[in-house]
Amino acid sequence: MYREKIKVLDCTVRDGGLINNHAFDLRFVREVYKAISLAGIDYMEMGYKNSRKLFSPSEYGFSKFCDDDDIKKVIEGIESNTKISVMVDVGRVDVEDVKPKSESPVSMIRVAAYVKEIDKAIYLVNHFADKGYETTINIMAISRDQGPELDEALYQIEKESKAKIVYIVDSFGSLYQEPVEWLVKRLKKILVTREIGFHGHNNQQLAFGNTIEAIIHNANYLDATIFGIGRAAGNCPLELLVGFLKNPKFDIRPILDLISKEFIPLKQKIEWGYIIPYAISGMMNEHPRAAMALRKSEKKENYREFYESLIRGLD
Amino acid sequence: MYREKIKVLDCTVRDGGLINNHAFDLRFVREVYKAISLAGIDYMEMGYKNSRKLFSPSEYGFSKFCDDDDIKKVIEGIESNTKISVMVDVGRVDVEDVKPKSESPVSMIRVAAYVKEIDKAIYLVNHFADKGYETTINIMAISRDQGPELDEALYQIEKESKAKIVYIVDSFGSLYQEPVEWLVKRLKKILVTREIGFHGHNNQQLAFGNTIEAIIHNANYLDATIFGIGRAAGNCPLELLVGFLKNPKFDIRPILDLISKEFIPLKQKIEWGYIIPYAISGMMNEHPRAAMALRKSEKKENYREFYESLIRGLD
Repeated sequence: MYREKIKVLDCTVRDGGLINNHAFDLRFVREVYKAISLAGIDYMEMGYKNSRKLFSPSEYGFSKFCDDDDIKKVIEGIESNTKISVMVDVGRVDVEDVKPKSESPVSMIRVAAYVKEIDKAIYLVNHFADKGYETTINIMAISRDQGPELDEALYQIEKESKAKIVYIVDSFGSLYQEPVEWLVKRLKKILVTREIGFHGHNNQQLAFGNTIEAIIHNANYLDATIFGIGRAAGNCPLELLVGFLKNPKFDIRPILDLISKEFIPLKQKIEWGYIIPYAISGMMNEHPRAAMALRKSEKKENYREFYESLIRGLD
Repeated sequence: MYREKIKVLDCTVRDGGLINNHAFDLRFVREVYKAISLAGIDYMEMGYKNSRKLFSPSEYGFSKFCDDDDIKKVIEGIESNTKISVMVDVGRVDVEDVKPKSESPVSMIRVAAYVKEIDKAIYLVNHFADKGYETTINIMAISRDQGPELDEALYQIEKESKAKIVYIVDSFGSLYQEPVEWLVKRLKKILVTREIGFHGHNNQQLAFGNTIEAIIHNANYLDATIFGIGRAAGNCPLELLVGFLKNPKFDIRPILDLISKEFIPLKQKIEWGYIIPYAISGMMNEHPRAAMALRKSEKKENYREFYESLIRGLD
């Protein structure tokens, strides 16, 4: 028995792009879009819409900027019912770069923000909503902000913003089931007119379990990535989520094909997944930044020293 | 805040041995025992106590047989408060091989059985209990037996057996949180004088999440393995479980050291973990046998064909 309101958003290219400076080429992104479309996934996120004044196109691939023309090249000639989403970070987007929805292949714009940036996020989502887009606010690092600041931000979103969906983002991969239950219930209590979304990180192998927990408590927007690709430990694996959801519109097989063909070779080239320093930063509710630096150093397998450096950092 | 009644059992050598015909050598098992002891883990399972009439010592390492003399060599000279456990399978043990507890380094004998073998399991645990051992019954493949046969087996265990602990064993890695909750509550309702244990498999990256779920509903005996080693997809990673439990007697650092030193190189030699065919068999509530055979074949990455062969097998 499935819940029709549940929508799955694939962010393979967007979150996976954080590992490789968004260097996925057009061929790869088209393959992902084909598989996601065949699998019947509701949304595919193409990347970030960042200002070219802040980031150089010579250093980053197209999914760092998500120009409409590039997105059109990705989707051209591919039959699909999958809607396109892009993400913007507070302070990194030129709102004037965003055309009205009627002129764009993009359906949804998701604004990622920390609790302290909620005013700016509300400004952005309202701007994009007025241009005709579906909008979401994705509250990052929510595991660090579960006190009265969160409640205040939620009341403000409910009162002032046009975002249709508000996401819980476990940026540090530190949530367990009980905080997920608490957060979903908290959001639902305050955001009475919105849908709740969940975006997990897999530092402690809990991204999928926490997504199920969010579903149990009536979150209806769920993020996942193929083979769990994503920054550091990665995300909830899309193939597991599709295997769990019973909606007959989903087909796991195109995703399995793409893992066989593209993701097994890719995993030899770039690193993500269950890696001890990411597990440790998740346990400690820390940004994976230090662990990512460790993985690029000669001390990449020196876990004890890393653990103790984080403990000292918390003194 | 920790729950003092929680006991952690490391089954690294026992479940990990299923990948390599129990070929871990004495040096390796001593290193594991040292780390487990330093980490303050309550029990370490040394392997299976199998009959030499059924399995040849020329084909299997010592942890297939767990002779008391071999166990003494493992623990000799190592300071430890960790108790030793061994596992027996119904129909594979010579009960006469098992000396009285007073003459053995072993503290606990765990009897693994399917629901249909419960009579034999009760016979064995009562025999071992009479010899002075702590005993458990580990109900394997419980995801296949959640109907009236399970209730009947549980009533019989409560009435007739001397097992102190009864484990839910998710052999196929197919349980989600809700069935785990249902099973723990079911066992607690019927087994009113016993403790409940949980042993997960990680096919769908849920072994740790399900272990937390079992804790939430008052299971107090928890199995885990270092770096999640174990047959097929492996088990609940001990380092994550220790990171989650707040009991000050546990120290994660010796486990981190052992992963750096032994398990990173080991993972280059033998395969376990998140591998798509194991995820598929978990989704389908199937034994990983077919997936294990696939991984030894040339079609190891041909996931679609494997998926469809399992679907057809369910016709």
